[in-house]
Amino acid sequence: ILYRFPRRGGGRALWRSSYQGPPASYTDSSDDETSPRDKQQKNSKGNGDFCIKNIKQADFGRREIEIAEQEMPALMALRKRAQGEKPLAGAKVVGCTHITAQTAVLMETLSALGAQCRWAACNIYSTQNEVAAALAEGGFSVFAWKGESEDDFWWCIDRCVNVEGWQPNMILDDGGDLTHWIYKKYPNMFKKIKGIVEESVTGVHRHTSTLSKAGKLSVPAMNVNDSVTKQKFDNLYCCRESILDGLKRTTDVMFGGKQVVVCGYGEVGKGCCAALKAMGSIVYVTEIDPICALQACMDGFRLVKLNEVIRQVDIVITCTGNKNVVVRENLDRMKNGCIVCNMGHSNTEIDVASLRTPELTWERVRSQVDHVIWPDGKRIVLLAEVHTHTHTHSSKQALTRVFVQALALIELYNAPEGRYKQDVYLLPKKMDEYVASLHLPTFDAHLTELSDEQAKYLGLNKNGPFKPNYYRYVKNKVGHQPSPSKPRVHPGFSRQPGL
Amino acid sequence: ILYRFPRRGGGRALWRSSYQGPPASYTDSSDDETSPRDKQQKNSKGNGDFCIKNIKQADFGRREIEIAEQEMPALMALRKRAQGEKPLAGAKVVGCTHITAQTAVLMETLSALGAQCRWAACNIYSTQNEVAAALAEGGFSVFAWKGESEDDFWWCIDRCVNVEGWQPNMILDDGGDLTHWIYKKYPNMFKKIKGIVEESVTGVHRHTSTLSKAGKLSVPAMNVNDSVTKQKFDNLYCCRESILDGLKRTTDVMFGGKQVVVCGYGEVGKGCCAALKAMGSIVYVTEIDPICALQACMDGFRLVKLNEVIRQVDIVITCTGNKNVVVRENLDRMKNGCIVCNMGHSNTEIDVASLRTPELTWERVRSQVDHVIWPDGKRIVLLAEVHTHTHTHSSKQALTRVFVQALALIELYNAPEGRYKQDVYLLPKKMDEYVASLHLPTFDAHLTELSDEQAKYLGLNKNGPFKPNYYRYVKNKVGHQPSPSKPRVHPGFSRQPGL
Amino acid sequence: ILYRFPRRGGGRALWRSSYQGPPASYTDSSDDETSPRDKQQKNSKGNGDFCIKNIKQADFGRREIEIAEQEMPALMALRKRAQGEKPLAGAKVVGCTHITAQTAVLMETLSALGAQCRWAACNIYSTQNEVAAALAEGGFSVFAWKGESEDDFWWCIDRCVNVEGWQPNMILDDGGDLTHWIYKKYPNMFKKIKGIVEESVTGVHRHTSTLSKAGKLSVPAMNVNDSVTKQKFDNLYCCRESILDGLKRTTDVMFGGKQVVVCGYGEVGKGCCAALKAMGSIVYVTEIDPICALQACMDGFRLVKLNEVIRQVDIVITCTGNKNVVVRENLDRMKNGCIVCNMGHSNTEIDVASLRTPELTWERVRSQVDHVIWPDGKRIVLLAEVHTHTHTHSSKQALTRVFVQALALIELYNAPEGRYKQDVYLLPKKMDEYVASLHLPTFDAHLTELSDEQAKYLGLNKNGPFKPNYYRYVKNKVGHQPSPSKPRVHPGFSRQPGL
Amino acid sequence: ILYRFPRRGGGRALWRSSYQGPPASYTDSSDDETSPRDKQQKNSKGNGDFCIKNIKQADFGRREIEIAEQEMPALMALRKRAQGEKPLAGAKVVGCTHITAQTAVLMETLSALGAQCRWAACNIYSTQNEVAAALAEGGFSVFAWKGESEDDFWWCIDRCVNVEGWQPNMILDDGGDLTHWIYKKYPNMFKKIKGIVEESVTGVHRHTSTLSKAGKLSVPAMNVNDSVTKQKFDNLYCCRESILDGLKRTTDVMFGGKQVVVCGYGEVGKGCCAALKAMGSIVYVTEIDPICALQACMDGFRLVKLNEVIRQVDIVITCTGNKNVVVRENLDRMKNGCIVCNMGHSNTEIDVASLRTPELTWERVRSQVDHVIWPDGKRIVLLAEVHTHTHTHSSKQALTRVFVQALALIELYNAPEGRYKQDVYLLPKKMDEYVASLHLPTFDAHLTELSDEQAKYLGLNKNGPFKPNYYRYVKNKVGHQPSPSKPRVHPGFSRQPGL
Repeated sequence: ILYRFPRRGGGRALWRSSYQGPPASYTDSSDDETSPRDKQQKNSKGNGDFCIKNIKQADFGRREIEIAEQEMPALMALRKRAQGEKPLAGAKVVGCTHITAQTAVLMETLSALGAQCRWAACNIYSTQNEVAAALAEGGFSVFAWKGESEDDFWWCIDRCVNVEGWQPNMILDDGGDLTHWIYKKYPNMFKKIKGIVEESVTGVHRHTSTLSKAGKLSVPAMNVNDSVTKQKFDNLYCCRESILDGLKRTTDVMFGGKQVVVCGYGEVGKGCCAALKAMGSIVYVTEIDPICALQACMDGFRLVKLNEVIRQVDIVITCTGNKNVVVRENLDRMKNGCIVCNMGHSNTEIDVASLRTPELTWERVRSQVDHVIWPDGKRIVLLAEVHTHTHTHSSKQALTRVFVQALALIELYNAPEGRYKQDVYLLPKKMDEYVASLHLPTFDAHLTELSDEQAKYLGLNKNGPFKPNYYRYVKNKVGHQPSPSKPRVHPGFSRQPGL
Repeated sequence: ILYRFPRRGGGRALWRSSYQGPPASYTDSSDDETSPRDKQQKNSKGNGDFCIKNIKQADFGRREIEIAEQEMPALMALRKRAQGEKPLAGAKVVGCTHITAQTAVLMETLSALGAQCRWAACNIYSTQNEVAAALAEGGFSVFAWKGESEDDFWWCIDRCVNVEGWQPNMILDDGGDLTHWIYKKYPNMFKKIKGIVEESVTGVHRHTSTLSKAGKLSVPAMNVNDSVTKQKFDNLYCCRESILDGLKRTTDVMFGGKQVVVCGYGEVGKGCCAALKAMGSIVYVTEIDPICALQACMDGFRLVKLNEVIRQVDIVITCTGNKNVVVRENLDRMKNGCIVCNMGHSNTEIDVASLRTPELTWERVRSQVDHVIWPDGKRIVLLAEVHTHTHTHSSKQALTRVFVQALALIELYNAPEGRYKQDVYLLPKKMDEYVASLHLPTFDAHLTELSDEQAKYLGLNKNGPFKPNYYRYVKNKVGHQPSPSKPRVHPGFSRQPGL
Repeated sequence: ILYRFPRRGGGRALWRSSYQGPPASYTDSSDDETSPRDKQQKNSKGNGDFCIKNIKQADFGRREIEIAEQEMPALMALRKRAQGEKPLAGAKVVGCTHITAQTAVLMETLSALGAQCRWAACNIYSTQNEVAAALAEGGFSVFAWKGESEDDFWWCIDRCVNVEGWQPNMILDDGGDLTHWIYKKYPNMFKKIKGIVEESVTGVHRHTSTLSKAGKLSVPAMNVNDSVTKQKFDNLYCCRESILDGLKRTTDVMFGGKQVVVCGYGEVGKGCCAALKAMGSIVYVTEIDPICALQACMDGFRLVKLNEVIRQVDIVITCTGNKNVVVRENLDRMKNGCIVCNMGHSNTEIDVASLRTPELTWERVRSQVDHVIWPDGKRIVLLAEVHTHTHTHSSKQALTRVFVQALALIELYNAPEGRYKQDVYLLPKKMDEYVASLHLPTFDAHLTELSDEQAKYLGLNKNGPFKPNYYRYVKNKVGHQPSPSKPRVHPGFSRQPGL
Repeated sequence: ILYRFPRRGGGRALWRSSYQGPPASYTDSSDDETSPRDKQQKNSKGNGDFCIKNIKQADFGRREIEIAEQEMPALMALRKRAQGEKPLAGAKVVGCTHITAQTAVLMETLSALGAQCRWAACNIYSTQNEVAAALAEGGFSVFAWKGESEDDFWWCIDRCVNVEGWQPNMILDDGGDLTHWIYKKYPNMFKKIKGIVEESVTGVHRHTSTLSKAGKLSVPAMNVNDSVTKQKFDNLYCCRESILDGLKRTTDVMFGGKQVVVCGYGEVGKGCCAALKAMGSIVYVTEIDPICALQACMDGFRLVKLNEVIRQVDIVITCTGNKNVVVRENLDRMKNGCIVCNMGHSNTEIDVASLRTPELTWERVRSQVDHVIWPDGKRIVLLAEVHTHTHTHSSKQALTRVFVQALALIELYNAPEGRYKQDVYLLPKKMDEYVASLHLPTFDAHLTELSDEQAKYLGLNKNGPFKPNYYRYVKNKVGHQPSPSKPRVHPGFSRQPGL
């Protein structure tokens, strides 16, 4: 499994993978090596409209889904309460997200609410094969496996949308690839599409710059990345846990006493820093924004430039959303054994391409862990994909992500004519608040209610919203708030929390 | 010093004092009891245009101011950099804020930038007499002492504005009393006033509801309470320290193992909870807003209704901005020795009036600390004014408050015709960012700069602002963003941080 | 994989496994099912004196060992510094510990220092098969695989000691089984044995009560469990990390907002509580010892009896060293989905046997994770072996354990006649201190040295020991301090830290 | 109040004051300047056998004592339970400790248990004058005031012991001065003395080296400094709070973002570091002992030599017990405004004498706060006495100190002949445990009791002691454990916790 990178000429790098990955022959030893595209598989009911690794793993995947359901009480509650009403009756949802147990719970919920679904993976590595098997066994048309090639990737997406007698009317996308593919190959399909729900900041940018800006976004899109709950819970609170889990599972590093530099002090960076500080690491922060920088200072982290500490740190973590935050020059100066880990959403933060030079030896030591070895024997432990890892295999952490996706689909699908134009919208604030309130019972948390007198004093409605005068306003390019008419979620929806 | 509250008929309660305070005869034993209004004092240069406790304390006050200067490097830097330019030349500022060493540094800075100042206190208890003496000695017209009566309070304000041959053209207000007084007594004065800077949320509400809404706000006002730096630093970070300091100085309580309920999980509540948790207290939280509530849960605090824990807690802290959060029924159920402390901005949170009944005995044990004694001997330790305490005596903590005030005065005074209308504005974002960047050197913090390539990738200007698409938008009632033309601060102002 | 426990009659439970585990047929799907005892394997040099799962996994195991070496700089330094000297020349060490990458680094170090080694596993589940393969490939006689039966367990131990032409003169034991086996089967072997190093508190008790007390311990034993570094680092600091890792890997639970009760507030409990509190859990503690209980209070944990919180908690963690801390009655009252996890050393803390009743269904969902399902559908997630898990698969955490084992072997093997009698000893304090000092360079930590004047003032030697008047004294039953003559470690050993 | 230090020749420095203090004329402005020794005062009953500042302050002092009682439930419980029994009937206790509200509660408890008391202060600055007044008013013979001269100090001690018709039979000492005085002046007095209780490590050393070693300690002494509860609670937990309080009250420094170096990582250092880290400071540690050093690393603090960080830190805290930890060379390199604070027990840690040179200007800015000003204007803020400050004015923190003193007095006074020889003893472990158990109800903490089966399994008595095989053993020079016969505390004493 030792290999040297050939000098490569040309070849477009997959945007979702910062390096070409291991040689094509690398697979888990326990897997057979036939491509799923060459297999003929059917589920126990004789249905074969899917393409996955191995349908026999369905039982194991089902158990994973059942475990996930236990961690997702809010979505299960939504499924239970709304399935009589079928708010998605008639919806034909095509999705392109990480295929995990959590996504499976989402898909089965959408189905319970009346939707039909076809699904591909948004990442060539992140599919849980056994979950895909359980979904296929359950009758879903899933096209995804772990370790797809780039060609496989687009083939799977195409299989989702290019079906005779079935045309999607809703899109759920994570990264914008699915939308892009439809836009390029089947532009007419947008005529029937009522809306797009986009998960990632990357996807939002692609929609808005490629499509919306050019006046080519012919349907409303909803940006669920910027909801308060997603920002706080998916980023701050989940990353607080997943940074530890991701590093520990891949490297077994002990955190106590280690020196760590975290690049970026946004929500992800704040979560990483808090967790590592609590485990006894000495944490440095780099930032470009003085307000975030001042917060880092007040939270007890030394604010440095990367070069000031690069020789002494044991771990480098990137979470900036920027590109080339860690470059070859930095990597050359790191000490032996330094771990370099990207927690940011995209994998542009570490200039991995700069390590594809002949004098460096790459060694894949575990799944998603590479040792890069310098001529003098120095090893860097490279976790370019730990974000993907933690967002998928540890994804039951993501309390709210798929729940917000479900709400956004319901909202866009049911919105009255005219509420949403051909533009990018934020999740309506009321739904954002609703997400939070549905999670409180999980914690046996008891909300206090305003008395009439107090509500009057504060000038608030007793049922909220509770932050009447402030809200995150997002300019044209990224999202509008919809017109203030009340969004329909489902009966009984009453709590409307504020920021 | 034992006394029982008489059954009171009538009498308007001072809004800034939740109880009538100790009997009129109560004073510090070390002070003489002559009212400053009855004294004739002059400073060493023969100037007598002030009214304070004792001019002889000036030396001691000067030392306090010098110590404060050391903790306020950003304001001192501004003083140094802008005093050549005199951006406030011609400004006549009338102010009504807490009279502390920190305010003194502000006033001396305004003076160095060209302004003339007259000042009263916004709170009858918070004046540091020795600082007022130092200001008077330095030639400032200050009208304030600790322990003013309500009549004194308005008399002092009047002395600031009702001067022959001098008319203010800028107002700096904390609570809205000064503005209100001018509006009632000298409405014509507004003709010359270029702008109002308002510090507190209470004052902002008074401006906007009483004046702006009624179409009577004839000058622009700037709400500096809602700046990001003020929200984060004055509230979260300062309260994290001042809750400990305020409780310790007044009660010497030990925090380890104590059970505490914090009402409200906004920035102040977050700061209080974090500090007490770190000191080994067991902390419960009450909230009305599900998003804040969920944050409390994820931060490790049990979310309860007050009644669930009221019998068992050792300390109750209010920081909701609401009224009657702790009422007599709650107070009746607390255990002996329970400390009840208001950290919120206004003193409406604890229904102190409900304790003015004949069967309860009040005992003032220290300045701002009352024991309220039930017939069975149970004592409640009441700190209705700890917020005031911590915001004044410990106020060197307030990193940014007076700095933001200074910037807002400069901006409003220098704004080109038409930038600000007769409305309430937020501090321009760029200035908010500037505040943060000026504080970084204090921490020996090194900001990273974007490369050209990175700036392009992110679609940002290298000098910021760094969060281009998001900003806190505040609706009409509370504040507008000014038109985007570049605010003038002073030459060399280039950093423009984002949220 | 659903099964119901049969009503079992008789059958001695293995002390190291609190339940019979899954049906015998359960294995990893990727493994073949032939017993290692039925296989004939040889390493690449033709040597077949071992019994392991699969020699072909040696390459993968070698990589694990190399990764482990990076985390164990102190042991690697010892190997380097002492291999010229060969302090274990002539030593024949028989070992019975967890077979992990870490143990492999120990064995290869012992070998580099001159010893011959034969090894068995002290736990039927904990062997890393690929590491065992790498050891066998490297020429070590290893007898161990994951998933041994009880019969296999003793067979492996016997294969280690019952060899023609080879007789051990040192024992390294973890739990006392190996010592017990030799004592029962080959008592004469003790004549050649110079000493026993015992790792676990269980083993120490067995030595002292079964052997020493009965006057049958004919060789000195060294209790390395009670060294300061082991107590603090293996227990407090490692458990702070491994509780999170163990729970996350097995259940993917999110810690934020979860209610957790930790039984026992010793070093392990302190580590668990600190970590969970930092991750946003609400933590309760149970204790029997008032001093530990008071520490829990001061550290901010509510001290409760288990029954007070058993209905509300999401996670129950035992780390008392006691038995039946969580019993069937408690388990019956837990809520659906509650995780029950033993972090204590022995698996007696949870009364798992009480769950082997016909009305409960067991389901093995992952390795070492069982769901126990009540008739009403309530599931308890049982991690009876998480300690084993974390101490093995995550064992690179254990900074100091094997290092202390190595030092103890060297000390006992080289001790002059008469230093150690037929009794149980503690690790000499000087070596304990030496362990700490050797780990400091890992953290780039710079120790301050006393000046002559300071040393004189404190009455200390400049090179330590630094806590002259205090040391942990352990009574007869558990361990003696050796006579104070200087222990021999190796040349250059000078630092002698205190408590 | 500006003054330059004269070049001083000769003159023994008081060991308890590291600098000569402010010029003799310095006093609180509110105090009159007559020496108490020149006043004739009587309490309301006509008793004049005391010497204090001002008997008129008695009422205020009484309130302070009542507040203190609320924070000392354990001592109050002891007073209540034992006052029928009068275990100190006939005891004549002479004491020399800090005179604080807490000490007053102790003295009144001793009196309730039957003892007569005479008391002096162990520190020339720490006396709370109003508390001394309340004690005098209550009939106690107290000789102490704030701001004694060295001559006053010894005069007060002499007045306690040199009385006609009264001779002490018990000594309670903090620092050893009282014992030393008796030993030098009235050696025959020891004949009637049954025992000495010594509070401080300094005093213990003086006893043991000066007296015990020389064979001159003719009575048993009990070292209460080294009790577990004292070590953990007085040092770790109290200092965690008092470092913040002490710094905030004296300097109003904001902790967030500040760089701090803490010299020494014992219990005091651990407490300081934990608190400052929690407040957002960046903390460095210096240590001489590798085991403590390794703990600092694992707790997340960079271990440095002082010189590595001296130029950059904002605060320097000493808590080593060593001398000259911060010397002139260090002080010369500190940056402007650096705060230097001694939290250690003795004031030898900072070489304050080295600052008494003509080129440096001293300025006393507040009580116990000096600015030392370099010729270039650099100011160092010197808090050489903050330990004293926090141990007295904030002393209600000290949960357990006086409680342990009371127990030790009872034990020594009631011990059967022969239990204690002429040596230094530790507090019997059982009493140490008893101290902890009496404090648990304060926290509403519920201890779990062992079942018979569990007690048997662990080999423990159900009522403890709970750590049978381990205890802190202290060698001859510092303290013996008494012979194991059960110490008498008072009826109902049953809990006997372990470490």
